[in-house]
This record gives sequence, C-alpha cells and structure tokens, in this order.
Amino acid sequence: MSQSTSNNRRILLASRPHGLPVAANFDVVSSAIPTPATNEVLLRTVYLSLDPYMRGRMSDAPSYSPPVQIGEVMVGGAVSRVVTSSHPDFAPGDWVLGYTGWQDYSVANGKALVKLDGKLPPSWALGVLGMPGFTAYMGLLDIGQPKSGETVVVAAASGAVGSVVGQIARLKGCRIVGIAGGAEKCRYVAEELGFDACIDHRSSDMAQQLAAACPKGIDVYFENVGGAVLDAVLPLLNTGARVPVCGLIANYNATNLPDGPDRLGLLMGTILKKRMKMQGFIIFDDYGHRIGEFQQQMGAWLQEGKIKYREDVVDGLENAPQAFIGLLQGKNNGKLVIRVGAD
Amino acid sequence: MSQSTSNNRRILLASRPHGLPVAANFDVVSSAIPTPATNEVLLRTVYLSLDPYMRGRMSDAPSYSPPVQIGEVMVGGAVSRVVTSSHPDFAPGDWVLGYTGWQDYSVANGKALVKLDGKLPPSWALGVLGMPGFTAYMGLLDIGQPKSGETVVVAAASGAVGSVVGQIARLKGCRIVGIAGGAEKCRYVAEELGFDACIDHRSSDMAQQLAAACPKGIDVYFENVGGAVLDAVLPLLNTGARVPVCGLIANYNATNLPDGPDRLGLLMGTILKKRMKMQGFIIFDDYGHRIGEFQQQMGAWLQEGKIKYREDVVDGLENAPQAFIGLLQGKNNGKLVIRVGAD
Repeated sequence: MSQSTSNNRRILLASRPHGLPVAANFDVVSSAIPTPATNEVLLRTVYLSLDPYMRGRMSDAPSYSPPVQIGEVMVGGAVSRVVTSSHPDFAPGDWVLGYTGWQDYSVANGKALVKLDGKLPPSWALGVLGMPGFTAYMGLLDIGQPKSGETVVVAAASGAVGSVVGQIARLKGCRIVGIAGGAEKCRYVAEELGFDACIDHRSSDMAQQLAAACPKGIDVYFENVGGAVLDAVLPLLNTGARVPVCGLIANYNATNLPDGPDRLGLLMGTILKKRMKMQGFIIFDDYGHRIGEFQQQMGAWLQEGKIKYREDVVDGLENAPQAFIGLLQGKNNGKLVIRVGAD
Repeated sequence: MSQSTSNNRRILLASRPHGLPVAANFDVVSSAIPTPATNEVLLRTVYLSLDPYMRGRMSDAPSYSPPVQIGEVMVGGAVSRVVTSSHPDFAPGDWVLGYTGWQDYSVANGKALVKLDGKLPPSWALGVLGMPGFTAYMGLLDIGQPKSGETVVVAAASGAVGSVVGQIARLKGCRIVGIAGGAEKCRYVAEELGFDACIDHRSSDMAQQLAAACPKGIDVYFENVGGAVLDAVLPLLNTGARVPVCGLIANYNATNLPDGPDRLGLLMGTILKKRMKMQGFIIFDDYGHRIGEFQQQMGAWLQEGKIKYREDVVDGLENAPQAFIGLLQGKNNGKLVIRVGAD
C-alpha cells in the first residue's frame, strides 16, 4: 500500500505499550488529505525519522515532553515536499524538515519548518545533519569536553548518534572505543568508521573486553544505553570523567526496577570519589540556539569526507511500527528512516 | 592530659573501622618532639579540624586520596603556632595553617604552610575561611550556579559546609531550605542563619515536609549526605537542576549495599529526563587555583556580618577520636574543632 494522492494514511497511538511495543499499540487509519488555510503549506512526507526517544512519548510516565495521547498521530521528524503553499517563503517542490509525524500528508504554518538547500541528500536532515547529529555534537563537545589523547567510549556506536560521537571524538584526537550489538555492527564501527576498537555487548566477557580496550581508563562515556553496558563502564571511569546522558535505551521498555542490591548510593559515591560530571540534556531545549554552528561545522566535515554516515532505509509508512519495534531491539543498521513516498 | 612542652602526643590509626569507627581504631602514643632540619619549622598545634572526609582516609577502599596506613598519624588540617624556625618566611609565634595531622607537634618545610594574618580568629581558617567554606563557595557557585528566585536545598545545613552554602545562596537571592538533624539544629538554621525553612531529617514525614517547603521544586541540591535525604530530594528536582556532590556522610559507615530494588537505572533516568547535572568535586584538586578569590570574598562577607559562623570547640587532643565518632553521628553543633593547646 503506497502513498496515494487522494487520501492520507496516519499512524496513531492506539494504546500504551507495557514493555516492548507491539503492533497492536499502533493503528493505521486513512483520512482525507488536510486542506491548508491561508499562509499554510500542504506537505507530502518523503522520509520519516524513527528514533528511540519516541518510546518515551508512547508512555504517560512523567518526562521532559508531554506524551502522545491515545488516538493521536505518532510524533516524529520528517522530510517532506511542499505540495501547495499560500505561504510566501515556500513553493511547491521545496524540500522541508518539520516535526510532522507518522503520516503521508500534513499542513504547517511555516514557522516550524526548515527549508533544505539540497546540497546534501535531504534525508540526512533527519540524521547526521539533524537531531541525532546535533545531539552527538553538543553532548560530546559541550558536556563531554574531550581532550586530545583521552579515551572516549560510545555506547550504541553504530547508531545515528553514537557513530557521529565517535567520529567527532576521533577528529579531536581521542582514542575511541565503541560498544555495539553483534559482530557485523562491530566490524562496521571499527573498520568503516575507524574506531580504535568496538566491543560486542552480547559477548559474555564484554566487561573484560572493554577494560582491555581502555588501558588508560575512560575519560568520556557518551551514555545512550544504560543497563549492562553502563555497569561495565562505571569501574573504568577515570577521575574527572564526564558522562553526557543522552539516552538509556536498555531501560525504555523496563516495566519495573531490577532486583537489588540498591546501587543508587554506589553511583553517587562513584560520582563523588571520581569527581565525575553526569549531565542529561535534551538537544533542542538545551542547545537550540547553537544549531547554526553545528550545521556549518557538520556540513563541512561531511563535504570533506571526515564524517561517514549510513542510513537504514525501510520502504513504506505501513512498516514504521515494525521498524520502530526493531529499532528498540537494535535491529537497524545505521540511522533508521522510513521512505514514505517517492522523492 | 594537656599539651606538654617535652613530648608529642600523636593519634595513630590503629585499625580500620568496620562501619562506624570506635575508640579502638585509634592509638594515642607519646613520642619525642621532632627536630626540624634546615629550612624547616617546628609547629605546635593549637586547633585541629575534624571533618567527615577523614572517615574515607581510615578505609583502604579506592578513593580520591590514599588511605592513612595503619600505625600512621591520622591526617587533618590544623592551625598551629611556630615554635622554632630556620625558614626565612616564618618566625616563632606566627600562626600558620597546615595539613599537620592529629598531634601536638609537627615539622614542616614551609612550602605547605599558609601564614594567617590574624584579622579574624585563627581557627576560622579550618572552617568558614578554609576547606569547608571554600567547598561551599565553589560547589554552590561554580557547579550549582544558583540564580535569583531559585530554590536551593542544602543537606547537613547546620554543618561547616551546609551552613555556608545556604547563606551564600541567600546572598544570591535564592529561597533556601535546609535539612538538619533535630529540632535545635533546625531552629539554629532557620532562626539564626536565616534559612527560609529547615526540615528535621529525623521526622517521619520528612519527604512531605520538604515538598511543602519547596512549592516550586528544587533547582540546586547541595549533596552532603545521601541516603534518605537524597531519596526525598530526587522527586522534587526541577528540569535543569544542578546537584554538586560534595559528600555522602549517610553512606560512609555502610558495610554493604542496601537491599533492592536497584535504583541505579532510575537515577540515570532522572538525570536524563530532568536534564540534570550531577557533579562530584574535591575542593583543592578542582579549585585550588581559585582560593584567592574565595578568601577575599568570604573575608569581606564575614567582616560585613553577611555570613554567620559557629564552631563546636572540644578541648583536648585525647578527645579527638570520640568527637570524630560523634561528628559522623551528627552530634556536633557547628564546625567541629579540637583545641589541642593554648593560644
């Protein structure tokens, strides 16, 4: 079932997941294509971004952003083509980035849209040149503050954020050690992205391998995952280590706290004794004012070939729920995007 | 048994404590007064500082500083008088601050000594004008970054560090809420130090009282204690909260981890969702280069009467072990110092 010119497929949140989402948590409905009002534009979605943070929006537990309500369209960033426009800044055919959600068509008033210049592939605005890349850039450089010669460890190293974190850290002269799930992802991270090492978190001796790959300890740990990876990292952190806390994908589907002992006090003691900084951040809330600096620098790195980028493109809006469930299980290879319609 | 002019009482670490230290962990021995070499000075201890961090030095668990070895003199800062000197910068009678330990006499080469100018009481160099005051100043201002109108919560609010943290936060225009142990300490904190509220952590409804005292949540939590106080604070922290981690006295005597569930991941999730910063620090390692700025500002505040300071002075070096054990139980009222000898 491909994109139509007569109706609008929309993927709604049907129910809140308990643990890992399942297909029944989503509803695919078909509606009329919306009609833009004065100064609005009608958009046709071409690429939809799928990202781990969306799991949080499916839940109504308190978080940094309000949840998607039952029956609402799932939220998400997308790259679209302008179909019709009564807004002076946008013309039919323009490529735009917007937060338009899991659907074929949307209307927008122009304020929340960013026009893409087309110098680089439009879908990259969802990844290396967009939210994930910006997250990697600011989290590593502003919170992590890596110095030449230091060791930077990146969890989810083959992912949209982690792959960029490691490559920026390499440009800053750091030793970079990735952690990823499975031999093929590790091969990609080490051989193609040029990390100094990549540890498979599915190995039974992951902690020992990580220790061996970090003979001088860990100065920056870019936290994307939590869970067993964090447990392996904590004993290796050096005095003065910095831990940007960007995500905790291992915990997102947890339905209750793990059994004890309670290590909350142990973590606090580690922060104290090692004089560590741990800092959470939400990229646009904390760093929105620095997007220009990021786009300029990242665009230059990409054009110079200094940063490599890989997408995992899945065809068809109807496949978004299953692809998203796979993302939470680490099944994607590179930045996951849904090709919703033809360019 | 008071200070003698013919022998040197020294308090040694006799054995490592298991849990709360006991008297048998210390040995009091009498030795000859040491003889200074060329360019050294002989010091007579007048005031010895007792501080919670010393519990860490009694243990051989990995930490930011090496442990005191069994049979060694217990470490600690002290204010002394110069007895004899062959160092050109020091003359008999000078007041100096040094890290000379739990003993009547010591020799020093001058490099590690700070001469005191005598404008304010010499013992204050162990508290409000020394390590605890400096800790409060940098931890609050550099890591906590309080802004006018924000709510700052301080644990161990009647103590050497906490009392100064709250008073500086008040000078910065914050709402300040203390947490202390017992009605008398809370009265002192609220009435004499001018905190907006002070909660008794021994109350069965401490968490409810704290929530009521922080109607706009908590923006800065200056962490001195950990344990149940931290548990009450965590749900109240605002988005963007800052948590300088200065001490965890509730955990220092713990012999194993508390029962589960394991809340390590929960704490990480709080850091992420609230975009919080938690940062440990060791004052002289992290901020030694800013001591001059601190001394100038704090000296001015004290002379203008803007910061109040209270000492709990215990007479006699032989009473140091028992006073230190009491400190770990919160029995002191104000900065604990031992008057080792006459001025």
